[in-house]
Amino acid sequence: MKRIKIIIQFLGTNYSGWQIQPEQKTVQGEVTEAIFQALGERVDLQSSGRTDAGVHALAMPAHFDTNTKINSGNIYKAINAYLPEDIKVLSSEEVKEDFHARFDVVEKTYEYHFYASNVRLPYIDMTSARISTPFDYETAKSVCEYFIGIHDFVGFCSAGNQTATTIRNIRKIGLKKEGEKYVLSVTGDGFLYNMVRIIAGTIIEVGQGKIKAQDLPSIIESKDRARAGKTAEPRGLVLKNVKYK
Amino acid sequence: MKRIKIIIQFLGTNYSGWQIQPEQKTVQGEVTEAIFQALGERVDLQSSGRTDAGVHALAMPAHFDTNTKINSGNIYKAINAYLPEDIKVLSSEEVKEDFHARFDVVEKTYEYHFYASNVRLPYIDMTSARISTPFDYETAKSVCEYFIGIHDFVGFCSAGNQTATTIRNIRKIGLKKEGEKYVLSVTGDGFLYNMVRIIAGTIIEVGQGKIKAQDLPSIIESKDRARAGKTAEPRGLVLKNVKYK
Repeated sequence: MKRIKIIIQFLGTNYSGWQIQPEQKTVQGEVTEAIFQALGERVDLQSSGRTDAGVHALAMPAHFDTNTKINSGNIYKAINAYLPEDIKVLSSEEVKEDFHARFDVVEKTYEYHFYASNVRLPYIDMTSARISTPFDYETAKSVCEYFIGIHDFVGFCSAGNQTATTIRNIRKIGLKKEGEKYVLSVTGDGFLYNMVRIIAGTIIEVGQGKIKAQDLPSIIESKDRARAGKTAEPRGLVLKNVKYK
Repeated sequence: MKRIKIIIQFLGTNYSGWQIQPEQKTVQGEVTEAIFQALGERVDLQSSGRTDAGVHALAMPAHFDTNTKINSGNIYKAINAYLPEDIKVLSSEEVKEDFHARFDVVEKTYEYHFYASNVRLPYIDMTSARISTPFDYETAKSVCEYFIGIHDFVGFCSAGNQTATTIRNIRKIGLKKEGEKYVLSVTGDGFLYNMVRIIAGTIIEVGQGKIKAQDLPSIIESKDRARAGKTAEPRGLVLKNVKYK
């Protein structure tokens, strides 16, 4: 028996998120089935975390145990043969038997992609959220720094959050312009349920003038979900990177 | 009667290119039909040029004549109501009656997006071509400058090119890295049939070591299609910008 770590990239558009659910097409379901087809084993596939319906991943780590004789570095190729076009495994490697894709995470980076337009932009719409204009980029950018550091983010998570503590450390956050779209990048030791989407929604509302920039510190301190912005829609969110100890 | 210029953005994945063809889903066909639904008129919609099946556009200009009483600046909204999600009109304006979306073009910019990987990358695959590794970015980048200026590009067009002359002026060309992908940007006074895709294919083969960088000047001078690279696949190509006199 060996433990294998894989890195998965997927376009989440057509999936009901990561976690296996009855009657739903999920990423965990598709990859687990592809592993069964490739290796002949029903494995317990554990990822770095769950993603919601419609959310994407550039590099989501996951692990499983197997008795296969296929070379560890080639397992991803065998799995890919059974995966649809919108889910692929980028690599596979043997890891220590106590490695855990979720519990050993020390840092995650998400990006939130969006564009401000009164018209849908078909070329970028699959992986970006459309927001209404006007949107003031400089004002939105100016509030990012308030999120940095250790805060109780209980006001920035949705009902259903199941973590023991709501204190998280945001190490880096930045907003940049890339062609027609804006990209918010957030790096932290971990995130609460919907936390990145609520941070994105809040920063977007600052840019739209719905939330005042100078109110941000007190909104974070208030721990009041009602004072933060709306949860930004899932299509703009992508898990970019996960680091382990 | 007034002449209206519109700017169209589309994801070309599901279309047999721009031009109306029997039994095919085309961008010209969809937009012409949407104009008919919105304005009640069958118009002759002329774009800046034809795009092949699978090619995208960020901003493709087109014009048509209409007797509609809808305010020119609002016509695009009426049309969008009848367009599918992967084609949208970004703006509409009245132009002089002798404006022509194709004949008045003075400059076009295309981008070619690609990534080098042995695995499909689902997050970027819809609008980027996958090429095989290894790919040496610096070497590929180094040959871009050879294309600049006025050349006879007859060796860089496909059979079926219908232009009077095969001499074209490339004003700007550059290759940059954006995250996981490479973006080749080419600006010129016009392009022959498949010219950007053949230039992209050639630069890609230089990066892959299939064509030697130092051979590029003689390949261009030879006017021999067989010495240039393969025509890169359509999904990576996007019409970015068109300028008029």
